[in-house]
Amino acid sequence: MSKVILCRRARFSASHRLHSPMLSDAENISLFGKCNNPNGHGHNYQIFVRLAGHIDPKTGMVISLTTLEELIDQHVIKKLDHKHLNHDVDFLKGMNPTSENLVVAIWQQLQPHIPDGLLYEIELIETENNTVCYRGE
Amino acid sequence: MSKVILCRRARFSASHRLHSPMLSDAENISLFGKCNNPNGHGHNYQIFVRLAGHIDPKTGMVISLTTLEELIDQHVIKKLDHKHLNHDVDFLKGMNPTSENLVVAIWQQLQPHIPDGLLYEIELIETENNTVCYRGE
Amino acid sequence: MSKVILCRRARFSASHRLHSPMLSDAENISLFGKCNNPNGHGHNYQIFVRLAGHIDPKTGMVISLTTLEELIDQHVIKKLDHKHLNHDVDFLKGMNPTSENLVVAIWQQLQPHIPDGLLYEIELIETENNTVCYRGE
Amino acid sequence: MSKVILCRRARFSASHRLHSPMLSDAENISLFGKCNNPNGHGHNYQIFVRLAGHIDPKTGMVISLTTLEELIDQHVIKKLDHKHLNHDVDFLKGMNPTSENLVVAIWQQLQPHIPDGLLYEIELIETENNTVCYRGE
Amino acid sequence: MSKVILCRRARFSASHRLHSPMLSDAENISLFGKCNNPNGHGHNYQIFVRLAGHIDPKTGMVISLTTLEELIDQHVIKKLDHKHLNHDVDFLKGMNPTSENLVVAIWQQLQPHIPDGLLYEIELIETENNTVCYRGE
Amino acid sequence: MSKVILCRRARFSASHRLHSPMLSDAENISLFGKCNNPNGHGHNYQIFVRLAGHIDPKTGMVISLTTLEELIDQHVIKKLDHKHLNHDVDFLKGMNPTSENLVVAIWQQLQPHIPDGLLYEIELIETENNTVCYRGE
Repeated sequence: MSKVILCRRARFSASHRLHSPMLSDAENISLFGKCNNPNGHGHNYQIFVRLAGHIDPKTGMVISLTTLEELIDQHVIKKLDHKHLNHDVDFLKGMNPTSENLVVAIWQQLQPHIPDGLLYEIELIETENNTVCYRGE
Repeated sequence: MSKVILCRRARFSASHRLHSPMLSDAENISLFGKCNNPNGHGHNYQIFVRLAGHIDPKTGMVISLTTLEELIDQHVIKKLDHKHLNHDVDFLKGMNPTSENLVVAIWQQLQPHIPDGLLYEIELIETENNTVCYRGE
Repeated sequence: MSKVILCRRARFSASHRLHSPMLSDAENISLFGKCNNPNGHGHNYQIFVRLAGHIDPKTGMVISLTTLEELIDQHVIKKLDHKHLNHDVDFLKGMNPTSENLVVAIWQQLQPHIPDGLLYEIELIETENNTVCYRGE
Repeated sequence: MSKVILCRRARFSASHRLHSPMLSDAENISLFGKCNNPNGHGHNYQIFVRLAGHIDPKTGMVISLTTLEELIDQHVIKKLDHKHLNHDVDFLKGMNPTSENLVVAIWQQLQPHIPDGLLYEIELIETENNTVCYRGE
Repeated sequence: MSKVILCRRARFSASHRLHSPMLSDAENISLFGKCNNPNGHGHNYQIFVRLAGHIDPKTGMVISLTTLEELIDQHVIKKLDHKHLNHDVDFLKGMNPTSENLVVAIWQQLQPHIPDGLLYEIELIETENNTVCYRGE
Repeated sequence: MSKVILCRRARFSASHRLHSPMLSDAENISLFGKCNNPNGHGHNYQIFVRLAGHIDPKTGMVISLTTLEELIDQHVIKKLDHKHLNHDVDFLKGMNPTSENLVVAIWQQLQPHIPDGLLYEIELIETENNTVCYRGE
């Protein structure tokens, strides 16, 4: 049984404001600059969800792609798409929605629902220049 | 003197909420759906600014690309990047920031500053699936 | 009322075989080469559907993107996605499914359902190197 | 001698039908849905072939890119491009051509011809949303 | 007989230096900045060659794509790929190799060899931000 | 404190000639072919700089993206952009500027300036088909 890494892309469009409750207003402006704009800004986010597992010889698959797509849709995309990440998302409340914090929070939402500990990595694309990866460590 | 269409890409990340002041709240929800989310959402916007003009035989150019880049930056990108299009931008005040309205507004900002009536077309990319073009008509 | 060109992308994966019933087998092999392989081959096709129209001042839109997406899905994507273009599609029966013929056939399927004569252009992407555009002429 | 991972992209267009000989027709339809369409469908596949090795100080290369390109072309692309993966390819006979099975089969074709055990990973892109990686495990 | 616009992409990697013989050294530096670097710099250029023509009902094509590809390769790519545009290319001698001048020169090379006046447009991509189009005017 | 891999993209356009001082002219021509053209050729290079580190709970970041961007710009892009890699760059003098050698040299330039040993990987994109990765080994 060969082991492969399967990857599924999904997308959501959202707005956010970088602002840390652990820093003063002046520190927030100094550190986050235009990303600290009070009314926020936004991105077309993409996530690449990667599963590492053995190929089932009966199906030729690690997991049904339809199942995987539905899990990502239900537990991530439906909750983040067309939302303001600072205000509209329960599991992000009180968190500074940097890419780093966001990818970890997405992992925590999705991981319990991916069968057999298959989840290997989530990559979050914020812009064509900025990306972050998380592997649960 | 040959005539060419020169194109320069620029990018901005912004948030917006689709909401028309000429429609009721119920009509806005019905028409714009998740795009009517009160706290807004956002996109990585791209614009392609196209100029149609003759090549100057002395320089081999229609216009200096540095000049063009600075004009786009000063009159468009600086005003839209990392902003909430409904709240933070003077020239969009009171406007429903659909892609259609946005591309026309960007044209109106930029056109007076492009020399010799060279501006030919502005294309606005909202997502990988949604795009709009305007030629000043 | 400003006039814009609105564009919506859609995708379908399909197989086809280039083979003209008006040519001999030898001519088909000579002309189409590996694309004439009897069992066919396939592509991830993309279409860009472009509508030219005036912006409705009440909505800020040319047409509801949801409506446009559903029309493309119902009249094009559902009929072509995951199909063999030579065998599985009623409106392509007896036709050599080149990109040229295919884009015209897609136009003829979609055009009657797009309101107000708004349909302006359909672009079909077959591979990253091969594309074709049709404007109803 | 520094160690790098060198990557070369190649492309092939092919058709396939997902259908496992170890499942009943009803199970195949239930599991693979539209991908089980009897006449098949197709994709523009891409592979990224990655080699891990030390830089030869004389040439500044891990391997000649021309050599690598020819090996990929001869052992993979020529056998898969413009083919029906279920019917036209000897080394895929009797196999359900999922991305998972396909990437392993491509590895097995290519690995014996890559010198010095340099082959590190093959990534197969089926669509912009679906990808799979294999490292020979 | 429907009329379509057929497009074929080709690529070449080349170096160039922007320097106009009709300007002084100081003017060249002032106008072209880092692009005037004496030893030059380079790009991965792409061209999109577009032909406008009627579909031949016998073949379903405007022109054989193999023929078109060979014409582009013979008359453009072979002459420009892996060359220094200021020094190595006969038909560019004495010309300032801006994108504008380059796309016109490519048109002049290719146009006489495209049958039936089918050539409609050549688009030259210099970088992801800079593009130019020429239609023979 | 979760550990993530943060990635920042940067771009430079440069020319180069593949030519090893440790090989004869005939060997250079035989090995590098058109890449050995005496006047050189060029590319739009991209680098992806990846840092592996823990998220600072106060800021929600591994490192300030502004700081990272400036470090890459100062130590890599300013030195390579719009240059001839064989002639214009001090730290590449006497080196055959293959992608393999180039990515190692870029690592050596950048690594001392990235705080806390965070630098994890540099990926260099030479063309859409050719890429190389280095992790400091």
